[in-house]
Amino acid sequence: MGFIIRKSERKDMASVWKLIKELAVFEKEPDAVKIGVDDLIKFGFSETPAFNSFVAEFENNIVGMAIFYNRFSTWAGPSIHLEDLIVTEKFRGMGIGKALYDKVLEFALMNNVQRVEWVVLDWNKPAIDFYKSTGATMLEDWNICQINNERIRKYLSQQ
Amino acid sequence: MGFIIRKSERKDMASVWKLIKELAVFEKEPDAVKIGVDDLIKFGFSETPAFNSFVAEFENNIVGMAIFYNRFSTWAGPSIHLEDLIVTEKFRGMGIGKALYDKVLEFALMNNVQRVEWVVLDWNKPAIDFYKSTGATMLEDWNICQINNERIRKYLSQQ
Repeated sequence: MGFIIRKSERKDMASVWKLIKELAVFEKEPDAVKIGVDDLIKFGFSETPAFNSFVAEFENNIVGMAIFYNRFSTWAGPSIHLEDLIVTEKFRGMGIGKALYDKVLEFALMNNVQRVEWVVLDWNKPAIDFYKSTGATMLEDWNICQINNERIRKYLSQQ
Repeated sequence: MGFIIRKSERKDMASVWKLIKELAVFEKEPDAVKIGVDDLIKFGFSETPAFNSFVAEFENNIVGMAIFYNRFSTWAGPSIHLEDLIVTEKFRGMGIGKALYDKVLEFALMNNVQRVEWVVLDWNKPAIDFYKSTGATMLEDWNICQINNERIRKYLSQQ
């Protein structure tokens, strides 16, 4: 199909960051990306990397990526969280997203991981349909809670 | 109040496992816990531990715990996921759950983490109300997807 999937390197992080931005725009949160290329390099290529990633390359351009990291389930044991998976708009419909998804699942099997988990926006029906077609389950009754640094500071200062 | 919160040790893992089971029963998934005490020791106390945990101790008994680990947000940077937080039934209403929650948030601040995240069952209103009262946000439009090892194998074998 003309593209390859490979492990990402430091030099890919500028392209990966652009894809993170593109995904944030797609997810209707264009201003959500608070980290920079330097953070991706710092946290992704340290002695104990905070994440791992694959990129899709087409004619020497990065056209897609998947970012993931380890988690631990007290029910299932070691698991992988797929944080982001995106193919840039012009290159969709060529099977690149599926190839990235498959690569992450293969990585999970090779590393003896019991589960791969991710989140999807409830209006992203094409993605949901694809994930279901692969055997993934959607958890209907769990809600995600988040508290950011600023709110943690405020809450703890009032205790 | 008679209880202390401290970092957990290997010797606490049998009690921590019992609390994981108690939480699974509370969450109406009594058979969900596939890991054992040995897994908690193996994964939690290795050279690169898969999780970190605090326990609540009352008269030399472990009566509560919080298990958490690092994640990485491509929007916010380093974050912490609070996997489990439970106080055993007899000891609820004494502020132990709040003390464990506060301790995890303090740990997050000390480690310069930008966000703490967890999931809650949509029918667990007391927990949801408490989390909201601390400044936490509930994400309404994101769904959780999971695919387990067995289904990954099946899916990949069909590609």
